[in-house]
Amino acid sequence: MDRLKDIKPFIVMDIVAEASKYPDAIHFEIGEPDLQPPPAVWEMTEKAVKDRLNYYTESLGLPQLRERIAQHYWDKYKVEVNPSNIALTVGTSGAFLVAYSITLNQGDKIALPDPSYPCYKNFAHLLDIQPIMIPVDETTDYQLTVEHLKDYPDIKAVHISSPSNPVGNVYTKENLQALAQYCEENGIYLISDEIYHGLTYGVEDYTAVGFSKKAIVINGFSKYFCMPGFRLGWIILPDELVRKGEIVLQNVYISPPTISQYGALGSFDYKHLEKNRKIFEERRDFLYSSLKELFTIPAKPTGAFYIWADASRYTDDTFQFSKRILQETHTAITPGIDFGNNKTNLFLRFAYTRDIDHMKEGIERLKGFLS
Amino acid sequence: MDRLKDIKPFIVMDIVAEASKYPDAIHFEIGEPDLQPPPAVWEMTEKAVKDRLNYYTESLGLPQLRERIAQHYWDKYKVEVNPSNIALTVGTSGAFLVAYSITLNQGDKIALPDPSYPCYKNFAHLLDIQPIMIPVDETTDYQLTVEHLKDYPDIKAVHISSPSNPVGNVYTKENLQALAQYCEENGIYLISDEIYHGLTYGVEDYTAVGFSKKAIVINGFSKYFCMPGFRLGWIILPDELVRKGEIVLQNVYISPPTISQYGALGSFDYKHLEKNRKIFEERRDFLYSSLKELFTIPAKPTGAFYIWADASRYTDDTFQFSKRILQETHTAITPGIDFGNNKTNLFLRFAYTRDIDHMKEGIERLKGFLS
Repeated sequence: MDRLKDIKPFIVMDIVAEASKYPDAIHFEIGEPDLQPPPAVWEMTEKAVKDRLNYYTESLGLPQLRERIAQHYWDKYKVEVNPSNIALTVGTSGAFLVAYSITLNQGDKIALPDPSYPCYKNFAHLLDIQPIMIPVDETTDYQLTVEHLKDYPDIKAVHISSPSNPVGNVYTKENLQALAQYCEENGIYLISDEIYHGLTYGVEDYTAVGFSKKAIVINGFSKYFCMPGFRLGWIILPDELVRKGEIVLQNVYISPPTISQYGALGSFDYKHLEKNRKIFEERRDFLYSSLKELFTIPAKPTGAFYIWADASRYTDDTFQFSKRILQETHTAITPGIDFGNNKTNLFLRFAYTRDIDHMKEGIERLKGFLS
Repeated sequence: MDRLKDIKPFIVMDIVAEASKYPDAIHFEIGEPDLQPPPAVWEMTEKAVKDRLNYYTESLGLPQLRERIAQHYWDKYKVEVNPSNIALTVGTSGAFLVAYSITLNQGDKIALPDPSYPCYKNFAHLLDIQPIMIPVDETTDYQLTVEHLKDYPDIKAVHISSPSNPVGNVYTKENLQALAQYCEENGIYLISDEIYHGLTYGVEDYTAVGFSKKAIVINGFSKYFCMPGFRLGWIILPDELVRKGEIVLQNVYISPPTISQYGALGSFDYKHLEKNRKIFEERRDFLYSSLKELFTIPAKPTGAFYIWADASRYTDDTFQFSKRILQETHTAITPGIDFGNNKTNLFLRFAYTRDIDHMKEGIERLKGFLS
């Protein structure tokens, strides 16, 4: 079987390339923050450059950064994580590859919410793992629940994200706890993508490792910490998977980028990060109230920086629809089809990763197009 | 089948970790250069930091760097490569994953020389591809040849490296050309790892893409350019594989580290690189003449920075032997077992990635241990 047969292009990356042709483009497509990381990130990066640190690090990453991340789990969640259970990875992308390859063999089944981050299912295809797309909708606030999982007794892993891309919903404490418990009791690997943690608006985010020491938690520096180009993530592994993870990391990555790791040592400046969070919250408020007048929004977003908008009053093919919007108004939006098969042809994903003036111009163009 | 079952730890990384416990350790184990990249690398890196370039790039990498690499193929080999056939990757490791995943499906066979770089076969196992280890020895100067391949008519790909790790041999023009032609004629993917190009001593290195536009060429900035911690490589793909490669890169990496890419723009300073090459050549001369007195060296190394030494007069288990040497003399050497099954239990791999005084001390310790 052709492992690439079912791997779709990561459409948003194609849209980014297309939109870059228009100097006057409005960007709702980009899932990367436009804000700056804490100043100490750049100071530590500059120091690493001055010190000419051009060497590999240990495959698991710099010990002092693994310790700093463990400290973060105590500071933010009051959860104890041993630094020896933490590995640095090349982006969260690198962490997905590790998580999938050490838990799943060819033909094994992994449950994914539909819609969810496009690359999850593509990692599965790459490794000949079978993704089971479970439709979620507003009846559970787009959360996967234990009730869903009970319908699929032969899954070996489940991969969720909270706050989620593309919906921007946040899993409740009760639901995340129930999922963690159910997975632990049934020998299912729970992979919890927490890359948007910290970017929540009026609700709290909980880490899966606080509910189960068997949970595999993935996070990184690309979103909340505003360091996407550094390509640095981390994974928390249960004791029995650490050595397996290390072996994959040694072989597939050698080590994560060195200068990025030193830079990340400066990233835990919560005061700066809170300023950034507030900016995203204001943008969310603006974009949500603006889009509500144009589209149906089934779940008010409380996290990440996305709004999942139902455009069915205009089209049943948002792929072509978003292409037309881009060509005619130079406004880039990601079509739902990137995120799964669950009515995704009716949806558009808007990112609020640019300032309000930029978005205002986009809304005006959209209104013109839709009228 | 457990995809990790046959994946061995990348032993040299474990030795690096063990050796780091001894402040007085002598390092023959490390496959990373200790020299500095051209000064412009750091200047460009500093500028990228000052410009606060914390964003993703295109998945294929910065267009100006792809163009610069294409120019390099003209300058060094007088071979025309279109920048659109070049993709930047997260190290050459990232390039291996791309090359294997776009050409091979589960159960497909890939031919590898034995001995060869440990991770090749582990990438294959990770993707449920079957590595066919073909023993090579001094009768062909440790090169894989068309004669070897004819014995394996059902291989779908072959992966060679020249200059090679661990032997340090360089493929002749005639042999590389014959391999490229045979693969093209027989629909076999030729994957040519050229990461040690530039580090040759008295012989010339040829690029496979100069002999076949179907060849997949992998190279990067970690060895000749002395930028291992930057985690940046590249891959040259034939036209019909570029889009497939892009789709894998979008999904698995998003993009390579941004600051590293800007830094690499400063790396093509051939005058500085030639100074580095000469230093490695002097070290090769010293280490080769020193080790010749202690071990049998079946192939005089003419490239990379390794010597493949036959220790069979002392042991038939160089894994335990190198452990004892490390513990008793704090001298770190990589056992042959990392590199395959072809009498590798009799061999040690020495890297000359430290200065001559450092190596002299190591040779003294070795002499004491062996006497």
